[in-house]
Amino acid sequence: MCVRRCVITVGDLGEFGVVNRIAGRLPQGEGVMLGPGDDAAMVAAPDGRVVVSTDLLVERRHFRLDWSGGRDVGRKAAAQNLADIAAMGAVPTSIVVGLGIPAELPVAWLDALTDGFREECAVVGASVVGGDITRSDLVVIGVTALGDLRGRAPVTRSGARPGHVVAVAGRLGYAAAGLALLAAGVAAGSGVLAEAVTAHRRPCPPYEEGPRAAALGASAMLDVSDGLVQDIGHVAAASGVRVELDPGSFAVGEPVAAAAEELGQDPLEWVLTGGEDHALAAVFPPDVRLPPSWQVVGRVVEGEGVLVHGRQVGQGGWDHFR
Amino acid sequence: MCVRRCVITVGDLGEFGVVNRIAGRLPQGEGVMLGPGDDAAMVAAPDGRVVVSTDLLVERRHFRLDWSGGRDVGRKAAAQNLADIAAMGAVPTSIVVGLGIPAELPVAWLDALTDGFREECAVVGASVVGGDITRSDLVVIGVTALGDLRGRAPVTRSGARPGHVVAVAGRLGYAAAGLALLAAGVAAGSGVLAEAVTAHRRPCPPYEEGPRAAALGASAMLDVSDGLVQDIGHVAAASGVRVELDPGSFAVGEPVAAAAEELGQDPLEWVLTGGEDHALAAVFPPDVRLPPSWQVVGRVVEGEGVLVHGRQVGQGGWDHFR
Repeated sequence: MCVRRCVITVGDLGEFGVVNRIAGRLPQGEGVMLGPGDDAAMVAAPDGRVVVSTDLLVERRHFRLDWSGGRDVGRKAAAQNLADIAAMGAVPTSIVVGLGIPAELPVAWLDALTDGFREECAVVGASVVGGDITRSDLVVIGVTALGDLRGRAPVTRSGARPGHVVAVAGRLGYAAAGLALLAAGVAAGSGVLAEAVTAHRRPCPPYEEGPRAAALGASAMLDVSDGLVQDIGHVAAASGVRVELDPGSFAVGEPVAAAAEELGQDPLEWVLTGGEDHALAAVFPPDVRLPPSWQVVGRVVEGEGVLVHGRQVGQGGWDHFR
Repeated sequence: MCVRRCVITVGDLGEFGVVNRIAGRLPQGEGVMLGPGDDAAMVAAPDGRVVVSTDLLVERRHFRLDWSGGRDVGRKAAAQNLADIAAMGAVPTSIVVGLGIPAELPVAWLDALTDGFREECAVVGASVVGGDITRSDLVVIGVTALGDLRGRAPVTRSGARPGHVVAVAGRLGYAAAGLALLAAGVAAGSGVLAEAVTAHRRPCPPYEEGPRAAALGASAMLDVSDGLVQDIGHVAAASGVRVELDPGSFAVGEPVAAAAEELGQDPLEWVLTGGEDHALAAVFPPDVRLPPSWQVVGRVVEGEGVLVHGRQVGQGGWDHFR
């Protein structure tokens, strides 16, 4: 009979109970040649190359357990890695997850986290093929994603040339607006403000636009994780060019505009410097005919740095140590 | 002039300063098609498959900053992942590292950590091809290793059959003896006790024996990370067999014997249940002629579980949550 404590925790199950429980919630897709349960997994790399990216998320820094549920955290952790793979022009095939969790963590939260990983991977047809679990006072999540370029060259940050155009696919400023609403304690309820909060909890990267941009001939690409101005600055630096952004060209999303009005902020600030939406920013030669999912927001010229409204701007994004 | 604080910290450099500093210390090997500095790296996977394994290490749980230097931690974090790749019969090609560190961490420690990663990777001809860095109160390290099977089938845990022999390559009990010495506050100085302490700080996995065992026809293999009895129990379970270990067959290393005498412990306990040496344990069909680097320590019979001295033993290894 359960009197004092009815919540089953990770400590109740033990390490191997937890591992088996997680593995049981993870179906394996067709590119997976060996899934969880051994020293390593094995994944197909059909064109003889593999693209790999890793990210580490730490509780209270990348997510708060009172602002996000386990499923949100799983989706977000997977999404930010899968977006890195897409930003190379590749199709994600799999992720592995290193998980540090407290013994007191409810198993239900871990189930939700696992479901979040599985669901976000399913969006792109990828599988969670393996992982590692250990004890930690705060929740720590290391995700590594693998991807397949399908014979194409990777789209790096260094191919932008003067005369090329800069375009963006996906949302900008949504996650930053949602975070600002949460930080201000605004009860977003449902409706347009809630959409911004949801965007903070679960980014919606436009994965399929990565390989599409590569096929269209993109000369440079990255995912916007620290803010567009800062991230496109990496393209400018790696390519040895200047990027001029035209703030007038940005479509400010309705949730971003509504949150800005609610909080008395400038929505464009979030659009230009807000991270975590994992939009894709790419550079294309001028003769490429872009589909409507790509919005032209600037151009590449000779020089260096990033210009907004004709003014050189600082990084204006996120530095984890400053 | 430096009066109050002469140590340069991670916070002084900032995120991008740190990233550039780390990348500058990491030469890239020939299988690396795109190294650090983009959304993802790209590595050759010559036979159209890639083996992948991940581990998460947390300060105070997997290492202590007063017991291990940055270089030790880097070597150990890399080693335990590279050993997982070897245990599949594969050759490691690369690692990516997710790093959580405090802003107050001295840059010199981070340099040493990076050197440790590079050095351990160099042992097997692998490269550190990418990573992620974020702020964290404790040092947290997520390592993911990739490997190449060179056209061979992976050696899993499930191929052991009655009549096969169980053999071990590498050290057993060294790291556990070293940890016990550190925990007891024994000043190991130099000599044979120091060798055990060094083994705790920097495991020495017999990497090359993994592909070698695969080529010899090993039917099952894993790396000993939680203790031989517990880990070989995973082989027994996955293969649906019983493993009988013969404790008389184990050569107890001199540092293990000396530490046991110093602390009044049973050295065989460390040999059978001590983890973190990352020895390789493999199962071979009886007709395989084993080289001297592989020591036969038991046999596979019908049944289940692990028998030592004819007695069924519990897991007797490490559970992170118990």
